[in-house]
Amino acid sequence: MSQIGKQVVDFEVQAFANNDFKTVKKSDLLGKWSVFFFYPADFTFVCPTELEDLANLYPEFKATDCEIYSVSTDTHFVHKAWHDTSDTIKKIQYPMLADPTGVLSRGFDVMIEEVGLAERGTFIVNPEGEIVAYEVVAGNVGRNADELLRRLKALQFVAKNPSEVCPAKWKEGNETLQPSIDLVGKI
Amino acid sequence: MSQIGKQVVDFEVQAFANNDFKTVKKSDLLGKWSVFFFYPADFTFVCPTELEDLANLYPEFKATDCEIYSVSTDTHFVHKAWHDTSDTIKKIQYPMLADPTGVLSRGFDVMIEEVGLAERGTFIVNPEGEIVAYEVVAGNVGRNADELLRRLKALQFVAKNPSEVCPAKWKEGNETLQPSIDLVGKI
Amino acid sequence: MSQIGKQVVDFEVQAFANNDFKTVKKSDLLGKWSVFFFYPADFTFVCPTELEDLANLYPEFKATDCEIYSVSTDTHFVHKAWHDTSDTIKKIQYPMLADPTGVLSRGFDVMIEEVGLAERGTFIVNPEGEIVAYEVVAGNVGRNADELLRRLKALQFVAKNPSEVCPAKWKEGNETLQPSIDLVGKI
Amino acid sequence: MSQIGKQVVDFEVQAFANNDFKTVKKSDLLGKWSVFFFYPADFTFVCPTELEDLANLYPEFKATDCEIYSVSTDTHFVHKAWHDTSDTIKKIQYPMLADPTGVLSRGFDVMIEEVGLAERGTFIVNPEGEIVAYEVVAGNVGRNADELLRRLKALQFVAKNPSEVCPAKWKEGNETLQPSIDLVGKI
Amino acid sequence: MSQIGKQVVDFEVQAFANNDFKTVKKSDLLGKWSVFFFYPADFTFVCPTELEDLANLYPEFKATDCEIYSVSTDTHFVHKAWHDTSDTIKKIQYPMLADPTGVLSRGFDVMIEEVGLAERGTFIVNPEGEIVAYEVVAGNVGRNADELLRRLKALQFVAKNPSEVCPAKWKEGNETLQPSIDLVGKI
Amino acid sequence: MSQIGKQVVDFEVQAFANNDFKTVKKSDLLGKWSVFFFYPADFTFVCPTELEDLANLYPEFKATDCEIYSVSTDTHFVHKAWHDTSDTIKKIQYPMLADPTGVLSRGFDVMIEEVGLAERGTFIVNPEGEIVAYEVVAGNVGRNADELLRRLKALQFVAKNPSEVCPAKWKEGNETLQPSIDLVGKI
Amino acid sequence: MSQIGKQVVDFEVQAFANNDFKTVKKSDLLGKWSVFFFYPADFTFVCPTELEDLANLYPEFKATDCEIYSVSTDTHFVHKAWHDTSDTIKKIQYPMLADPTGVLSRGFDVMIEEVGLAERGTFIVNPEGEIVAYEVVAGNVGRNADELLRRLKALQFVAKNPSEVCPAKWKEGNETLQPSIDLVGKI
Amino acid sequence: MSQIGKQVVDFEVQAFANNDFKTVKKSDLLGKWSVFFFYPADFTFVCPTELEDLANLYPEFKATDCEIYSVSTDTHFVHKAWHDTSDTIKKIQYPMLADPTGVLSRGFDVMIEEVGLAERGTFIVNPEGEIVAYEVVAGNVGRNADELLRRLKALQFVAKNPSEVCPAKWKEGNETLQPSIDLVGKI
Amino acid sequence: MSQIGKQVVDFEVQAFANNDFKTVKKSDLLGKWSVFFFYPADFTFVCPTELEDLANLYPEFKATDCEIYSVSTDTHFVHKAWHDTSDTIKKIQYPMLADPTGVLSRGFDVMIEEVGLAERGTFIVNPEGEIVAYEVVAGNVGRNADELLRRLKALQFVAKNPSEVCPAKWKEGNETLQPSIDLVGKI
Amino acid sequence: MSQIGKQVVDFEVQAFANNDFKTVKKSDLLGKWSVFFFYPADFTFVCPTELEDLANLYPEFKATDCEIYSVSTDTHFVHKAWHDTSDTIKKIQYPMLADPTGVLSRGFDVMIEEVGLAERGTFIVNPEGEIVAYEVVAGNVGRNADELLRRLKALQFVAKNPSEVCPAKWKEGNETLQPSIDLVGKI
Repeated sequence: MSQIGKQVVDFEVQAFANNDFKTVKKSDLLGKWSVFFFYPADFTFVCPTELEDLANLYPEFKATDCEIYSVSTDTHFVHKAWHDTSDTIKKIQYPMLADPTGVLSRGFDVMIEEVGLAERGTFIVNPEGEIVAYEVVAGNVGRNADELLRRLKALQFVAKNPSEVCPAKWKEGNETLQPSIDLVGKI
Repeated sequence: MSQIGKQVVDFEVQAFANNDFKTVKKSDLLGKWSVFFFYPADFTFVCPTELEDLANLYPEFKATDCEIYSVSTDTHFVHKAWHDTSDTIKKIQYPMLADPTGVLSRGFDVMIEEVGLAERGTFIVNPEGEIVAYEVVAGNVGRNADELLRRLKALQFVAKNPSEVCPAKWKEGNETLQPSIDLVGKI
Repeated sequence: MSQIGKQVVDFEVQAFANNDFKTVKKSDLLGKWSVFFFYPADFTFVCPTELEDLANLYPEFKATDCEIYSVSTDTHFVHKAWHDTSDTIKKIQYPMLADPTGVLSRGFDVMIEEVGLAERGTFIVNPEGEIVAYEVVAGNVGRNADELLRRLKALQFVAKNPSEVCPAKWKEGNETLQPSIDLVGKI
Repeated sequence: MSQIGKQVVDFEVQAFANNDFKTVKKSDLLGKWSVFFFYPADFTFVCPTELEDLANLYPEFKATDCEIYSVSTDTHFVHKAWHDTSDTIKKIQYPMLADPTGVLSRGFDVMIEEVGLAERGTFIVNPEGEIVAYEVVAGNVGRNADELLRRLKALQFVAKNPSEVCPAKWKEGNETLQPSIDLVGKI
Repeated sequence: MSQIGKQVVDFEVQAFANNDFKTVKKSDLLGKWSVFFFYPADFTFVCPTELEDLANLYPEFKATDCEIYSVSTDTHFVHKAWHDTSDTIKKIQYPMLADPTGVLSRGFDVMIEEVGLAERGTFIVNPEGEIVAYEVVAGNVGRNADELLRRLKALQFVAKNPSEVCPAKWKEGNETLQPSIDLVGKI
Repeated sequence: MSQIGKQVVDFEVQAFANNDFKTVKKSDLLGKWSVFFFYPADFTFVCPTELEDLANLYPEFKATDCEIYSVSTDTHFVHKAWHDTSDTIKKIQYPMLADPTGVLSRGFDVMIEEVGLAERGTFIVNPEGEIVAYEVVAGNVGRNADELLRRLKALQFVAKNPSEVCPAKWKEGNETLQPSIDLVGKI
Repeated sequence: MSQIGKQVVDFEVQAFANNDFKTVKKSDLLGKWSVFFFYPADFTFVCPTELEDLANLYPEFKATDCEIYSVSTDTHFVHKAWHDTSDTIKKIQYPMLADPTGVLSRGFDVMIEEVGLAERGTFIVNPEGEIVAYEVVAGNVGRNADELLRRLKALQFVAKNPSEVCPAKWKEGNETLQPSIDLVGKI
Repeated sequence: MSQIGKQVVDFEVQAFANNDFKTVKKSDLLGKWSVFFFYPADFTFVCPTELEDLANLYPEFKATDCEIYSVSTDTHFVHKAWHDTSDTIKKIQYPMLADPTGVLSRGFDVMIEEVGLAERGTFIVNPEGEIVAYEVVAGNVGRNADELLRRLKALQFVAKNPSEVCPAKWKEGNETLQPSIDLVGKI
Repeated sequence: MSQIGKQVVDFEVQAFANNDFKTVKKSDLLGKWSVFFFYPADFTFVCPTELEDLANLYPEFKATDCEIYSVSTDTHFVHKAWHDTSDTIKKIQYPMLADPTGVLSRGFDVMIEEVGLAERGTFIVNPEGEIVAYEVVAGNVGRNADELLRRLKALQFVAKNPSEVCPAKWKEGNETLQPSIDLVGKI
Repeated sequence: MSQIGKQVVDFEVQAFANNDFKTVKKSDLLGKWSVFFFYPADFTFVCPTELEDLANLYPEFKATDCEIYSVSTDTHFVHKAWHDTSDTIKKIQYPMLADPTGVLSRGFDVMIEEVGLAERGTFIVNPEGEIVAYEVVAGNVGRNADELLRRLKALQFVAKNPSEVCPAKWKEGNETLQPSIDLVGKI
């Protein structure tokens, strides 16, 4: 079975957000869209380029009522220290979750047990707390926040318009399809 | 554990390819890159737009020495019939795999057991037969073959250049990073 | 134990019937006779000759208050596409059930697990939902709808006349036997 | 799983044949076709009409190199006594197998455990000892030896001509089909 | 543990009795004495001499309020046929039980599993449904109904006179013993 | 399963025989016939009448090459003491086996666990060490050594003449039967 | 764990006492002291010397309100016979318990399973039914009733005077010790 | 099962002996007789009177080639300290074993688990390392070394004279018995 | 998991305290601080130097409302004897617990099973009965009561001042730290 | 069981040492003394004071041939970043081990599973890789490197001088004790 439709694991973790420490938990997800953005480790190389890519698009995610949570197995103390010392990371305004117990990395099936770090995995979660899309890429290649945003908007569109579906490469404003028995074999 | 680094399941299935029926099996993957592109069912709606999107980029995938395999739980007889009767599907030149036993859909963890169909899952497999990237999207939203091609090329680049890594949004020709202890905390 | 007297498995599947998609389920069987007619795959060779043979006799089955359900592991989308494109299949007026999960093929013990397709199995089900006769033939030989109809009528006759039994080759209108202790050793 | 392709159970039973008692066992089946014809009990009512129907066609079965074995859970002493005292049964020339242990009735899945008797089940077995067709009918309705013979001949035909298949209602001398990719969707 | 004192198994079987078919069950035993007389098979050799021996003494058993039940694994149809055709068996007036399921043969531990037939076992059952004496003899030697009757009468005597015991070879009318501490070592 | 055909349990016990103590064991049985005659307890009431009955016929048993072993759970010291003090028991010339461990009483399934004593069970054992006949009678009724001798001789007769069988009540010198297919239904 | 403080097993056995048979059971022990005196077998050699030794001191045991029970695995019939025929045993006035089931021999852990006889074990039981002293000696050496009586009296003394203890070799009338912290290291 | 005939547990413990510390182990027992004398605790009350009683008879035990081992769960340091400070204990010349792990107390089944101390248990062990006699007395009553010596000598006598047995109260020089079948019932 | 935060095991043991014997149990700990000070054995070498070291500081521990319990697997009788005879031990005023059952040594994970003695382990327990610090040192090296007292006082300080923490080497009167997000990376 | 004498778990981890990244593994420990110094997290409060305390004494540890390893569940990237940015941490010259998988924290039993961080635990390991001393303190109280050094030196002393032991508070140069039987009870 894939993870599509699975409820997010029950969790309660420390986060660094708005220059403060706070607790984030499962119930905070309900009622709005979320993106969980896992990466291996603070103070490394590919990760900051990805986090910056997301930081740049953060206003557009917020505009669609979607919160972003970055997650690594580092502590919130380390997130704070990185934020303090890196110009790139300083741009981040979304919560940075600390997962030293692995409750999230294992709950989303992205823990690499041999090294105790998370894979580069991204998960879109709907307002009911269910995973509706995800991608995982081997550790040395960066993701693309534009495609993530495109996919999020398509998922939000079909959630609001259940009788329509979004074809390949669909972007906001493009045409959609309306499935019916008469369309069978016609596309 | 994620599926990154997992060997593809051992399999042997019927396929429709080059206007003929043939057998495709695990050992056919070794030595070149592969994409497994799962979709729910022939003669439906989103699927053909995605398959066409891939068909259009097929020459570029072939140029990078990567084969594409589309997969559904339909039989090869049905793939042939669809190819015969749909103008869209007629464009397809890559092998269409038949998975009525679910050996592939279960082997890649994308079988939806309640309906007997596969999720919209895409997997990039390296020449050693290991999964190196994947994405799964809920059934009513189409994927994007451009992003798939970008990611494939980045994975091929770092496979050839093990001391370099590709930052976020990297495209062929962009700069890469060379990790070293001196870069720690500098990005 | 044979399958005689066994309740049909609980099921709910998609069907193509009367040029539309609908749901067929266990409770639809109760109160009238049914025939379940399994075959391996749409768009193949022996299957359409058998389905046509049944289609020709369909009025006689309906006249005895018996519904026919053809079943393969193909989807209802594929049934529709086949019906649209084949002159033979276009004659079919009975519901064509879609069994991609195998709930029916396994419930009636006719799934061929190595290929994910059903055997050529026919089952007569009484108005209480119990199997009262069945036959299974290896994949490359067609069945005979005349014999199926003969057998159905004999089973309906003894259901209505519990003190009588039908001898070999009995057809509607032939004489029956009335078992009694005095007949022991006299036939 | 259906019983198609299953090896017949290993067995060794007493039989009444040619007015004598003899032993029949699994290895006697290899190299020629066989029919196993189960019925509930000697000295009853439907059974003798079925056995007579078979006895009449016995020369045609022998002509196709096929042996017939009738089977009930009665002893060989009882088969002899019935043969001695019933004019109908006296016509039987094929071996009558005694199955008081149920090795055959259970091996072919036709034992009715609550009463210790066999269902009305017929099985066609190929020269390799594998079941290739079978039918089972509730206890009060007789079978039809003509249809059994038609089916046997079709199975023998495709065994000899593996590239051909027999359509519905095929009888010796009728045309057959030759499956090929070009026939897909054409029947 | 021996079978002495064991309740007879719960059962319900078909019987041939008084030229008719009827059902005999556990509760029919309560309130009077019973003899269960197992033998291997109808239409054989030793068995009819034993059954005739019992038939001759049947009036004396009835006079002591004891019913006799003969039992084999043959059906009631076969018992009827044997009764019809054998002059010896025709003398039998006690019920002949049919045990094709083996419920009695296994319940009294006399089933020979390799051949599906019962041993030559005799059981005396008291009015409470408990076994109080039994004997089993290998298949080719006949029993002796005189000794059975002697033993039944002795068992009935001590059941009525609990303070007395019957010495070896005791017959109706002989003296009995009255155990007391003063008899210890005196016999 | 009955005990017919079962090998006697492996055993080694103390015995009182010929006014001495000796060991009797399983291997002593092989090559000649044996009777095991169980009874509850020394110094009681029914038991001595039975043992005397056997003692009187002992010469005839010896003449047929059959040894008698009486068995109770008392020790060999007690057997000796009883033999010394009872005029009845003093007549015994066969070995009296001591079974305080219950190896024989449990091995022949006649131990009454609630009281630690054996039932009144008699077993005839052939020269191969297999049980060929047995009887068990509730505790307060004596057995009959004449019937035991009749049965032993019949069993010895058919052991020597395997193609013949002894009918009911057969005694030495009576006629026997020779089973053949022509006798079926003729007795 | 030793057996000190263990409740005597629940039991109900036959006994020979006062020239009669009676039942002795667990509840008979409560409220007075008891000695259980196990020995291997009636009619043997060491045993009667020990039983006589006890019989001689029986009045003194009774005077301390202590009952003696001798126990072997022989039956009560055998105890009676031995009492009748041996001048030594005739002196016994205490109950002789019969333990053919081994409930006592196993309950006190003195059964020798290989021979079905009890070890030479003596147990002192207090009025609460708990074992307070015991000894077991290999089979060929007799015990000493004087030492048993000494020990019984010491145990009765400390039961009545809980603040005192009896030193080694203590006999009735000797001084005892009164434990206190001031005595630590002073003896 | 009793402990008679059981091999002493394998052990290796510290001891205080001859004013020094040394190791005592299982193999030291073989070839001579031993007494294991368990007591609850050093520096208590009954224990020293018993140990002194034994110390007084130690020369007689040594004269019969028997070693004495006293055992408590105290350490060898504590044994030394007690020996240093108590006039009574200073008399001891036999080894005092230290059993803080409980290997001996549990191996001889005398550990009182609720308090971690040993019962007052004495064991006589033969030169083959097997227990041949033992006694256990509740904690507040002293044992008697005279009776222990009497019993040891009787056990040594029958070990040397296997055809003789020692009657009750036997002491060195008394007569013994020679069991034979002629003695049965004569004592 | 470490033992920090674990509830002390439930226990009830004998102790030597204030020149008397008394019982100490789990509930005695609640409401004040405790130190459990394990050592291998009374009457040995390192142990008394450690116990004296503690005895010297006992007034300071009492002043902080902390009780000290020394523990070995010796009995309370031995503690008393040691206290009586050693000038060093005579100084001890805190309770000396006796642990011959090992309930404490095993409950605190310091039992050395091969020798039945405790390791040199020290445990600080808070007024809720939870372990808050511990140390264990191999058997031949003495501990340091000054460091134990320093640590106890620091633990008491932070228990009273939950927003402060004690840095390395902190002693009463030194400065403490007040953790806050602004201190991250500043120390 | 305590952890004294336990082999250190087999491990291989990343470390930051000498301004570089390197691998440290089990085999690096053999042949010299080691201290494992666990603390909860980088960039926190008590931890740096403890690490600085150790850093100050590092030359003295090195002088005794002992390596120090600090360990937290942070990555080596984070150790490097902390070392770069904190003046306190910059003083550290010993290797800082990274334990994100918890192999060390669990192997030494100091992982706090609820938060994924290590307790404040210190372990002294001898040149054979065995733990010889350890201490664990609840999270908000700092340790004392002076006491650690004292203890290390005492352990090294007794390792070199096995016949001597170090009393409480022993420091280099102080007198030691030489255990012998004559010292028992003299300290």
